[in-house]
Amino acid sequence: MTRFNIDGERMLSDLRKLRTFGECGKGVKRRAFTDADIQARRWLASRMTEAGLTVHVDPVGNVFGIPEGATNSILVGSHSDTQPEGGWLDGALGVIVGLEIARASREAGGPPIACVSFQDEEGRFSTLTGSRAWTGVLSLADVDLLADSDGVRFEEERKKASLIGTVSEVPTDWFRSFLELHIEQGPILDTSGERIGVVRDIVGIRGERMSFIGEQNHAGTTPMNLRRDAFQGLVRFTTDLNSKLRGIAGPATVWTIGHVAVHPNAASVIPGRVDFSVQWRDPSDELLQRMREVVHQTALATAEAMRLEWTTSDYSAIPATHCDPTIVAALERAAVTAVPNGWRPITSGALHDAANVSKLMPMGMLFVPSINGISHNFDEDTAVDDLVLGAETLARAINLLTN
Amino acid sequence: MTRFNIDGERMLSDLRKLRTFGECGKGVKRRAFTDADIQARRWLASRMTEAGLTVHVDPVGNVFGIPEGATNSILVGSHSDTQPEGGWLDGALGVIVGLEIARASREAGGPPIACVSFQDEEGRFSTLTGSRAWTGVLSLADVDLLADSDGVRFEEERKKASLIGTVSEVPTDWFRSFLELHIEQGPILDTSGERIGVVRDIVGIRGERMSFIGEQNHAGTTPMNLRRDAFQGLVRFTTDLNSKLRGIAGPATVWTIGHVAVHPNAASVIPGRVDFSVQWRDPSDELLQRMREVVHQTALATAEAMRLEWTTSDYSAIPATHCDPTIVAALERAAVTAVPNGWRPITSGALHDAANVSKLMPMGMLFVPSINGISHNFDEDTAVDDLVLGAETLARAINLLTN
Repeated sequence: MTRFNIDGERMLSDLRKLRTFGECGKGVKRRAFTDADIQARRWLASRMTEAGLTVHVDPVGNVFGIPEGATNSILVGSHSDTQPEGGWLDGALGVIVGLEIARASREAGGPPIACVSFQDEEGRFSTLTGSRAWTGVLSLADVDLLADSDGVRFEEERKKASLIGTVSEVPTDWFRSFLELHIEQGPILDTSGERIGVVRDIVGIRGERMSFIGEQNHAGTTPMNLRRDAFQGLVRFTTDLNSKLRGIAGPATVWTIGHVAVHPNAASVIPGRVDFSVQWRDPSDELLQRMREVVHQTALATAEAMRLEWTTSDYSAIPATHCDPTIVAALERAAVTAVPNGWRPITSGALHDAANVSKLMPMGMLFVPSINGISHNFDEDTAVDDLVLGAETLARAINLLTN
Repeated sequence: MTRFNIDGERMLSDLRKLRTFGECGKGVKRRAFTDADIQARRWLASRMTEAGLTVHVDPVGNVFGIPEGATNSILVGSHSDTQPEGGWLDGALGVIVGLEIARASREAGGPPIACVSFQDEEGRFSTLTGSRAWTGVLSLADVDLLADSDGVRFEEERKKASLIGTVSEVPTDWFRSFLELHIEQGPILDTSGERIGVVRDIVGIRGERMSFIGEQNHAGTTPMNLRRDAFQGLVRFTTDLNSKLRGIAGPATVWTIGHVAVHPNAASVIPGRVDFSVQWRDPSDELLQRMREVVHQTALATAEAMRLEWTTSDYSAIPATHCDPTIVAALERAAVTAVPNGWRPITSGALHDAANVSKLMPMGMLFVPSINGISHNFDEDTAVDDLVLGAETLARAINLLTN
């Protein structure tokens, strides 16, 4: 099939235009279904139309640009909604790169490429809402029941989809595969000086809420050897857990104690209880399960050694996602050509729409560096050359996949 | 001088009567200057009068019972105010024992004994308010500026002192020494099965507020080796501090991390900051100073090793108090007689009015066991035999000191 090249300047121009919707300092405020988001999606739809694509808006506000007559196209995209205080790239980069690749391929008579901006990836209503609804991970009836933190129902807000364009179902079998370019949102490429990350997996996530319960007591009159200090239990648990998990961790394994609540939390009172979260991520569901056993064993051993009670609740598990080997191979060949020593295979530690889409079709992802690893922050940025290089590498991989 | 014996039944009867003021379940609600407190102090004053003592109420509501003509008496007492939800013994025991000893000695023609109930030991306005004002540790002008948690000024509340009796200054030089019987409020005697603790010292207390500041980051995209996790800093600091302090601790040394605040305190975010309290107590001011150096060294080493920033503020120091050796010797002789193998020298891990009074005159304290070490709680209690034994032992020591 005819090869195509993207127009980097045109892509950057569109990316900067998208930034103007909800622009705030160096960043963007463009939550799902706010005025800025709807205006941005209307503009996106107009750019798709100008590129000769047919705009389809699905019932939850995902915006697709479909090449004429194509029912077996490659879908490229991401999301254009942002965090309450978001960076200008995040999902926006992948959306504009999808538009540019679809447009460039059509102009050159290349393979049929569709593009998409998913809705509410950033979780105004629920994480990855738009792609979960489109892929059927959540039914429309269930999505409609979601509410944002102010109690506004998704069912009400999604009526605004008709402001973007005519609303209709977009069958998932119109597409043969899905590709997403995204900023890394972490420091790995920026630290190593590499410019492209070829995603192999998206991590699975496990989380659990736990408590150690000891005995609340006077910090003056209770000797050290008679204390049952719940916070000291957490300290010992954390220390032992770090040591044990280091022994079984893979290169992409992470674990975090991010939430801690000490009771009664007063300087002169020995903590009688501590509630805390433990979260761990890895691309291997098997390792994640093994880690859970280690977490539980360590907590039980701590409770026994320190005469505490241990409770656990709210276990959650999001399975790992694996990218399609054929797509990964094409992305790697493209990366080698673009920057022979400047790329690496990488694991995505964050979730992406691609994880949902991968349940229905082969999926691949490419990362470009985040300067200082910063994301979900007005200061988020990526070198201009890396933005263009990422788009070119994705286009090259599509040319490889279709020739 | 003529020896005297206390009347245990009369003492218990008065102690039970005092409990009825503010009684609540098994405990008592009798905060300083509440109706229950004023009524209790009026009743106490009437019992002092009935015992032939002259009642003096000082400007902050401390109630003294003074034997006729005596300007060189031994003062015995404690406080009759309680925590918002207090136990029935706490300071009340020492107040009634003071009344009984003063009464019994007067009846028997023994040494002149005065008794006292200090006001607001429990800190409605400030810890040990009444004894701090009486001993001049705080000036009346400074005490008047204090306010409770509802903003009520001490200056207003202390006008209620006139409801107890005629208000006048009570010179501290009317008294040659001070003795206080108190429940231990800790588990040492209860655990060992001993019935009397002869207090050698009241601990000094040092406290400090500290923070570790790292880098708040995404718990998925930030590899373990690039994290600057402030909570993990606190875990390492606490572990290292425990190990180092165990190496220099004396038998009465305690240290506590009772307050911890993690920011932003979310399961999916690496903590960027943790604020926490460190408090340590010991009867040796020299050791307390050395411990502070260890706390600082450990925090600095942690910050350096984990690439964190460390800050410290709000250092507070209450010096240790040492009981008078002559009084301690008399209390020990009395304890040996009462329970040859059932007493021990002990350090008070909590503050008491006696610490303030000791700045002006020789001071001694005696402890009786707290069942299960419980205090500041409706469930606080002590075996009846131990209450009487404590009073008898204190009376015996006074007979030894005056003969």
